[in-house]
Amino acid sequence: MHRSLREQAPLVQCLTNYVSMDLVANLLNAAGASPAMVHDDHEAGEMASLASAVVVNIGTPSPPWVSGMHAAASVARERGIPWVLDPVAVGATAYRRETVTALLAHRPSVVRGNASEVLAMASATAAGRGVDSTHESDQVVAPAQELATRLACVVVVSGGTDVVTDGDRTLLITGGDARMPLVSALGCSASALVAACCAVTPDPLVGAATAMALLAVAGERAGRTAAGPGTLRPHLLDQLHLLEPGALAGVTLR
Amino acid sequence: MHRSLREQAPLVQCLTNYVSMDLVANLLNAAGASPAMVHDDHEAGEMASLASAVVVNIGTPSPPWVSGMHAAASVARERGIPWVLDPVAVGATAYRRETVTALLAHRPSVVRGNASEVLAMASATAAGRGVDSTHESDQVVAPAQELATRLACVVVVSGGTDVVTDGDRTLLITGGDARMPLVSALGCSASALVAACCAVTPDPLVGAATAMALLAVAGERAGRTAAGPGTLRPHLLDQLHLLEPGALAGVTLR
Amino acid sequence: MHRSLREQAPLVQCLTNYVSMDLVANLLNAAGASPAMVHDDHEAGEMASLASAVVVNIGTPSPPWVSGMHAAASVARERGIPWVLDPVAVGATAYRRETVTALLAHRPSVVRGNASEVLAMASATAAGRGVDSTHESDQVVAPAQELATRLACVVVVSGGTDVVTDGDRTLLITGGDARMPLVSALGCSASALVAACCAVTPDPLVGAATAMALLAVAGERAGRTAAGPGTLRPHLLDQLHLLEPGALAGVTLR
Repeated sequence: MHRSLREQAPLVQCLTNYVSMDLVANLLNAAGASPAMVHDDHEAGEMASLASAVVVNIGTPSPPWVSGMHAAASVARERGIPWVLDPVAVGATAYRRETVTALLAHRPSVVRGNASEVLAMASATAAGRGVDSTHESDQVVAPAQELATRLACVVVVSGGTDVVTDGDRTLLITGGDARMPLVSALGCSASALVAACCAVTPDPLVGAATAMALLAVAGERAGRTAAGPGTLRPHLLDQLHLLEPGALAGVTLR
Repeated sequence: MHRSLREQAPLVQCLTNYVSMDLVANLLNAAGASPAMVHDDHEAGEMASLASAVVVNIGTPSPPWVSGMHAAASVARERGIPWVLDPVAVGATAYRRETVTALLAHRPSVVRGNASEVLAMASATAAGRGVDSTHESDQVVAPAQELATRLACVVVVSGGTDVVTDGDRTLLITGGDARMPLVSALGCSASALVAACCAVTPDPLVGAATAMALLAVAGERAGRTAAGPGTLRPHLLDQLHLLEPGALAGVTLR
Repeated sequence: MHRSLREQAPLVQCLTNYVSMDLVANLLNAAGASPAMVHDDHEAGEMASLASAVVVNIGTPSPPWVSGMHAAASVARERGIPWVLDPVAVGATAYRRETVTALLAHRPSVVRGNASEVLAMASATAAGRGVDSTHESDQVVAPAQELATRLACVVVVSGGTDVVTDGDRTLLITGGDARMPLVSALGCSASALVAACCAVTPDPLVGAATAMALLAVAGERAGRTAAGPGTLRPHLLDQLHLLEPGALAGVTLR
């Protein structure tokens, strides 16, 4: 899987929020994938037909961008290209809830969010206040499984322990560094890496778990030399680039 | 104040320019606040009603963004939520002057700019050529005081010496590192941190001065280990994260 | 040239893609120039009349941005202000090809791209798949020379060896670090630095070659201390800031 990512260097089309553009592109490069930030509906659908995977992230939504997201996601769906939905802060505003609901019509391969976001999607009553999660990821195993079954896709809940489930099979991934939530857009970048990994395996559960495990290992290694969240980010990119093919052997999956 | 920031982790809605998105979000996280980048008028007003503070930065203005800025600022004003205006390069173009004039109708709690920007607002004759200041901050104490009195808000002029004034009370803050102006969007991030601090104190003068002092201390410490402006940025985020509760005891206020 | 850049600190207006905003601004600052990110057509033309150089980068195009690009490029052309076109991924979509063709009407001073992008412009048959080059830069000397002659401008092909040509004169620049292609938007930043250097010399060939040489030297030095692509970026900014006036003496031009 990790070897395939480097050998195939999949082209990942990213329709992602303004905050995350920089880190998403650099993180995909560091992992061995090839990012393409193409969002406008003058070209989003055309680009999706050339891409190996697509990630759609609603972090800074506006009508022209949402239009491009539909163009890319619909092409991905038609052509069997894996696509990942990142429902940033879906519980915060009506516009985000409507946008996510509409995008689900294109049936994503994977939905990745934090605990609050997944709970907001799983239940009409749960709501996060913003982009930062106010729930722990391991509290949401059952809601994540139900959501995965209902949407017929893989659901990833990132946090101290990452939950990856397709409703039937569920993997928990530990590792990383406690300061990773302070690196803005690292979750968005995880979604993009999930897309990259799904481009090189037919099983999106395996792709999603591999992506989260790569980040957990690289984050843990980066944390050993980082003095704080500022240096954690470049160190994490370094470690992701340096990961040897057998790096995932030490990851705890249960 | 610093302790309150970490304990309350205020949600700060940021309508900020494209260049600054990344650093603003990371700097708020490092300081203990929670950033929410929400700009489109489909949700900007709704989000403002949930936020503890709002920052409006005109660095890369366009009509849809300016529309969202009005939506957020008007809700903030109505509900008594502190909001900060950052008039980036206001002297450079007619569009920026018009945008700032219109936004002032929502009566910001704080205006933060560099010396050229504050002079441009204080006087129709002064004008900076772009985003970089061509004036020293301590040359603008009197104009800043007059502007603060006229607008009935706090005015912050950042520079080698930061000036913080409400017209009656004036604080000068020294510290930092001489290379901080080379870190793009650090001024924009200061505005966001001012908003965060104003969320946890009823006095915007105290909030603004605390934010500038936190940056001065963290910047000075970061400068000791940074080889240049490239590493100064991650080191500053590290130091901001590591600041102990008593860090501001050493700040010179006069 | 390098001394002139620091002494004159030219104001460079950047209409650049979302991914690159942060690095472009920081890299211009580190090199001694003054960036101004101004893109909307409410102010793009007015700003161009104040700028010493303009860079237009189509990395994340959309109609409002393309409109601003035309406004800035046409003013630059009328007033003899050097402007640089960066045709990001021009081979990937019809919208990019149309956008580049239309912008060429304003006759850029310099076109800078990677090998795939320059080949796509030089030939209707060549096409890159995305933003990453699938060709080597030294394979494109002849097409670059032909393109430069046809467009009557300087063409820069960045890569392991940089090619800088006006059709008659051709310079090859070596140096840098093998991991530089993994730093997202470094090519976009090179385009901006080319613009900055063209602001302080009447010969765009010299300006373009100086910019690429500055990056080659700074990149090589940064590579000595960087563990990977994550730390390479801040180290490169540090080294660019630290470059002594005689730094370019060691660059190989052939």
